[in-house]
Parts: sequence; structure tokens; C-alpha cells
Amino acid sequence: MPHHTHTLTIPTSGPGMHEITRDIAAWIAGTGIRTGLLTALCRHTSASLVITENASPAVRRDMLRWLDRLAPQGVQYEHDDEGPDDMPAHLKTALTGVSLAIPIEDGAMMLGTWQGVFLVEHRAQAYRREVALHLAGE
Amino acid sequence: MPHHTHTLTIPTSGPGMHEITRDIAAWIAGTGIRTGLLTALCRHTSASLVITENASPAVRRDMLRWLDRLAPQGVQYEHDDEGPDDMPAHLKTALTGVSLAIPIEDGAMMLGTWQGVFLVEHRAQAYRREVALHLAGE
Amino acid sequence: MPHHTHTLTIPTSGPGMHEITRDIAAWIAGTGIRTGLLTALCRHTSASLVITENASPAVRRDMLRWLDRLAPQGVQYEHDDEGPDDMPAHLKTALTGVSLAIPIEDGAMMLGTWQGVFLVEHRAQAYRREVALHLAGE
Repeated sequence: MPHHTHTLTIPTSGPGMHEITRDIAAWIAGTGIRTGLLTALCRHTSASLVITENASPAVRRDMLRWLDRLAPQGVQYEHDDEGPDDMPAHLKTALTGVSLAIPIEDGAMMLGTWQGVFLVEHRAQAYRREVALHLAGE
Repeated sequence: MPHHTHTLTIPTSGPGMHEITRDIAAWIAGTGIRTGLLTALCRHTSASLVITENASPAVRRDMLRWLDRLAPQGVQYEHDDEGPDDMPAHLKTALTGVSLAIPIEDGAMMLGTWQGVFLVEHRAQAYRREVALHLAGE
Repeated sequence: MPHHTHTLTIPTSGPGMHEITRDIAAWIAGTGIRTGLLTALCRHTSASLVITENASPAVRRDMLRWLDRLAPQGVQYEHDDEGPDDMPAHLKTALTGVSLAIPIEDGAMMLGTWQGVFLVEHRAQAYRREVALHLAGE
């Protein structure tokens, strides 16, 4: 069967970046696919996916602070039904994106040495976030 | 035939967000594909694609205003051949992106409950925008 | 063989945008694929991929200056191991993204008339950047 799908569940507890590279790699390995394409979709409008440096935690802290500057909380939003972190979370999600496609070679994602795949939680409260995965290959 | 392509045409009339989730879903249903991958590409440099909340129109209004703040009109641009909304439109397009990939399961996009796919028009005048679709699956 | 992979290498020398549309198109042509999907992944955390206007060099200069405004150098970053352009480069990469998917029809990418695919270098020093390509089709 050349098309595989799967869903990862990631528990979160406030703004943060959760590396899911190994979870994705483990699922790919289990399918036996050697050459192909991995696609990941974050199924939410206030959490997103980003590929960034996986070595220094300071990079992730700087990135979260930078997102706070680009999409700050404040009185400028019409939509605030769920609190002051609601609309900024939608904006940060649009900025960083929810969909990633990654080529597979020799059974592994063709990521660079320093690249990791992260789920980014933008809301203040705890959630269980879902990332849909698709793999096509041979 | 495992690879399908199609083009959607969306008429626009100034800055706005146009939901195309149902148009894409209808095309997928017509192909009979049950498991696979949907890819959408906005074929323009001043309109983009974004996945965001599909319930509250206030979210879309806030998002358009936020894009105006991040890429404001002004005298700071060297490129202004087509007017003051020209370069901001290119920047908003680069920020939100033109390419989306979405896994398909049971004949449907694996979007979350609140996610919709939107074409975002960034120019002031009316256009007919094209979104290229690709579907691979079985 | 329906799944193809390839790696492009792009030498850079400081912040700039390098069009790779023709390199990708030439590789697609060599595979003989007529209908399918092209995916590109920039294998770095301080260089990214963007689809934007390929006609006016002023658009690219304006885009680089705008990225400098959204992710400026300064003392606000905790992560500065590799110099003042280090963390801004990670942020610009997260903002513009490293992964693109483009439908293929009649052996060509379904890009619009004015769209080009660019590798964007965000670091001050010279690098050899790699873009992983995947093509599935028939």
C-alpha cells in the first residue's frame, strides 16, 4: 500500500515548542518506505509547525518572544471571545504555518543536520494537539 | 490514474479572505480518491493561501488588519510601479505563503474542526485568482 | 520508478535571493514525469525558500529590507553564539519557511506567470546551501 496516514497526539501546557522529529521518523521506519514524501498537518488554528534549529533551547525561547512581539496581546483585536491570547495565537499560526512537506531518502527525512520539526503551542492553557501525517513512497 | 490536477478560479474585489475548503472537497470527492495527498498552489505573487479559523468573520478581519500592520503601505519601498498596495501585497504573500499540502483519509481532508482553507487577496483592485490543485492517492 | 529525489547546491555570499526555478525545471524535465508533484526542502535553519515576483530586482531588495525590519539585529536575543545575524536568520527562516510543494502538469510546474522559486540567504557569511527535491508522478 503506497499511501499511509497516521495521527500524532502532543500534550501541551502553555506556549512552547515540542520537537516531534523522532516521532515522525519512528513512524516512517515502521512503514518500510525508503524513498518518498512525508507531509505533516497541524489540525489546529492556534498551534503550528515549524522547522528550526534543534540544538539550542535559547533559539526556541527567542522565537517565542519574537512571535509575542509580532503578534502581541492587546486591545486592537475585534475577536477576543476566548481571552487575550486567542487572536495572537491565530496570527502566530498563520505566520509560521500548519503544513510541511519533507522528502524521504534511504528511509529518512532529508532534513539538514541542525533541523528539527516542532509543534508550536500558542495558547496559554493545556491542550492535546493532533498532527496528521501522510507518507507516499516505495 | 493516480495523479490528478485541477485549477480553481476565485474572483476577488479588494483585500479579503475567500474560503475554498468546499470547492477543494468537492473536487476530491469527484476523483474517488480515499487515501492520499492534496496540494494547493496559489499562482500569484500578491494573493496567498492560509489555513485558519472558519467560524468567526472577526478573525479574518483581525488578520487582514494585522497584515496591514506588518507590511504597511508607505514611502519605504523601492518597488511601487503598480501603486502603494503593490509591494505590501508581495510581502504579505511571502509571509503567509502560497503552497499547502493536506493529507486525505476516508476521502476527506484531515483538517481540524475549526480549520478552513482561504485564498487571501492582498491587492486593492479586482482579480480572477487561480489555485492549482494536485491530488495523488488511491 | 515513480519517486525521484535530487539535491541542488547553491553557493551564497551574504543576504540575497537566488532564483532556482530553472534548476528545478531542468531536473523535472530530465525525469520524464508529465503529471505529478514537486516538493522542495531547504536543509538549513538560516536560509529559506520563497515564491515571489521574478521580474523586478527591486521586489527582492524590498523584501530583504522588510525581513530586516521584522527580525532586526539587536541586544534582545538570548542566542547570539554565531554573531548578531544568527538569531535574526533563524527567525526570517521560520517566517518565510523551508518547504514548498508545487503541482506539475504537462511536464512543468504550475507556477503563475510572475512566480519564481528563490532560495533566500539570511546569514552574512558565504555558504553552500542545499535544497532537497522530491518528484512523484507519471
